[in-house]
Amino acid sequence: MELAVKLNSAPQNEYPIVIREGLLEEIGEHIEASSEGGNAGCGKNFIVTNETVKALYGKYFEGSNKNFSAEFIVIGDGEEYKNFQTYEFIVNELLARKIERKSKLIALGGGVVGDITGFVASSVLRGVDFIQVPTTLLAQVDSSVGGKTGINTRFGKNLVGTFYQPKKVLIDPKTLQTLDARQIKTGLAEVVKYAFIEKTASGKGTFGAFGVEFFDFLQNNNPAEHYPYIIAESCQIKANVVRQDEKESGLRAILNLGHTFGHALEKVTNYTEITHGEGVAAGIACAFRLALELRLVTQDYFNNSIALLEKLGLETKIPENIDRKAVYEAMKSDKKVRDTQINFILPSGPGEVTQRSDIGEPLIIKSLL
Amino acid sequence: MELAVKLNSAPQNEYPIVIREGLLEEIGEHIEASSEGGNAGCGKNFIVTNETVKALYGKYFEGSNKNFSAEFIVIGDGEEYKNFQTYEFIVNELLARKIERKSKLIALGGGVVGDITGFVASSVLRGVDFIQVPTTLLAQVDSSVGGKTGINTRFGKNLVGTFYQPKKVLIDPKTLQTLDARQIKTGLAEVVKYAFIEKTASGKGTFGAFGVEFFDFLQNNNPAEHYPYIIAESCQIKANVVRQDEKESGLRAILNLGHTFGHALEKVTNYTEITHGEGVAAGIACAFRLALELRLVTQDYFNNSIALLEKLGLETKIPENIDRKAVYEAMKSDKKVRDTQINFILPSGPGEVTQRSDIGEPLIIKSLL
Repeated sequence: MELAVKLNSAPQNEYPIVIREGLLEEIGEHIEASSEGGNAGCGKNFIVTNETVKALYGKYFEGSNKNFSAEFIVIGDGEEYKNFQTYEFIVNELLARKIERKSKLIALGGGVVGDITGFVASSVLRGVDFIQVPTTLLAQVDSSVGGKTGINTRFGKNLVGTFYQPKKVLIDPKTLQTLDARQIKTGLAEVVKYAFIEKTASGKGTFGAFGVEFFDFLQNNNPAEHYPYIIAESCQIKANVVRQDEKESGLRAILNLGHTFGHALEKVTNYTEITHGEGVAAGIACAFRLALELRLVTQDYFNNSIALLEKLGLETKIPENIDRKAVYEAMKSDKKVRDTQINFILPSGPGEVTQRSDIGEPLIIKSLL
Repeated sequence: MELAVKLNSAPQNEYPIVIREGLLEEIGEHIEASSEGGNAGCGKNFIVTNETVKALYGKYFEGSNKNFSAEFIVIGDGEEYKNFQTYEFIVNELLARKIERKSKLIALGGGVVGDITGFVASSVLRGVDFIQVPTTLLAQVDSSVGGKTGINTRFGKNLVGTFYQPKKVLIDPKTLQTLDARQIKTGLAEVVKYAFIEKTASGKGTFGAFGVEFFDFLQNNNPAEHYPYIIAESCQIKANVVRQDEKESGLRAILNLGHTFGHALEKVTNYTEITHGEGVAAGIACAFRLALELRLVTQDYFNNSIALLEKLGLETKIPENIDRKAVYEAMKSDKKVRDTQINFILPSGPGEVTQRSDIGEPLIIKSLL
């Protein structure tokens, strides 16, 4: 399956997302083929990955491909390595090993590897070609698509980075077999988010490219039996949004459904207790409760949506031990807050969302079940 | 005087260069006016500068402008501060002081301040508006225009950075009064470079926008009496090149006339003995000697060009104590070298240059007078 990501503001930067079971076994061909689009030539290539992922999939990048050679740069496994220090480490490794402008950087791993490698690719020698090979569901359906790169600082997550589109996104759904249930769920939270924004994302108020409403598909099928399809549908909906608004000056904010709550939940638990997806899933449920209070959605759509979250095994309540007031305070200090009013993306009908920043504290607290 | 910098690849990013004696006295108005073009609104603004420049011009940013407020971030004065550490320091200061997406970063100073502030602006919160207020001749005619940002690493200069255009370049030629003769000369080396590339830079094989050949103007006038004009002419020629090739995939290389030699001279003297401009001036002379050997230029044009360099007080010979072989080796390890062939931009006639990468060691060494 192959999709194209296009940007209205820079149509020449169109790039493909290739989704295929077993793709890793022919990874060399895909990477070499991408030379046509970008800098042609034969600079040294570099794979940035972590120890865990290298042990699993490093073999596909070694030896087997005659016309393809790349060197590994291995970073630590975990969000705590997505920082200035690792950024500088990767840059210095590349320069020490004589990276050239024609070199390609390949990000092999989850969101941490993808985000930091993208930031390096956008800045080393003022930009080299960059290929995403995401190996987690979360990275395959979210962070590898759309060109946001970044690192964390002590002031918060992703506060430093660039908008820098990859030349190609190469997805092998077989890699999901090595993820545990919790890692799958954290990806499914983003997947189901796309079902809730599908219509608004299209820009035309219509449902998606695949002929069936994603919401219905997820209701009626077991995702584990359809990974290539749900990855493609998710990427397509995200690509629709990014095409219209690469740099988040408007529409792209709808991708944050559930995230205002979710980021706050991650923050008050020091990014250790709950995963990004768990925060987003609970956050989507909070957004639905707020939308119901505001009469933005019908009781029926509300019920069906909460039921879909539950069917996917996602938690719709905030863990009991978390202080609701602290969550509210964390939301108020979010980087997207303007003039101390919290911005929310809220469901407003099947596949539709709307932006609201006029909601008072009592109603917000009430939604934090 | 006001020029516009436009990019063919992104015409919506057009921005003005304002050149006016006394501009600093009305700096607040210029900065506030730039809100229209970019992110409208009233985020906190920040001025990045160094101790020396703040002592001279900081007062223009303090108090006097009711509708304008900005906080200072002060870095060390010197090329040695253009590194990862200072980059991280500025980013953390901005985040600690709660920079918002609507904030503007103002770079007040020379090339070091401009380059590092531009890199910060392109990456903090994934990009905020950025205004250049260059205070050295070198920065006014070269580094502040064109959108190259960067920092140095232990492997070389400007090896990390981005292409990120400012929203505005504000130039007050009065600031040149505080520069010493050596600082002026380092800027004049870039100024005279524009005279040698003017015709090729236009893309149409014609001379500049100002109705007179820049070469003739510099021959017949004392630059010190015409700073606003020579800054405008230099910026216009550079803007012509950048418009056609923002990201240095072709034409932009002509801006490197004299720089292959110049960078090598700076490198073998550890960036301490000779300034960038001294390296470039001697490098231009070397390029002319090479061009004469290759019969790319007439003896007449060669003589006139060397005489122009000398008239401007620029050194056309490499200091005697510098080992020529070491200069050659440094050129071979330059980041722009492909397949071990050194690329040169060489004069090929009045206002014209050409690219050559087929020149053997003996001829190169011979040019290193």
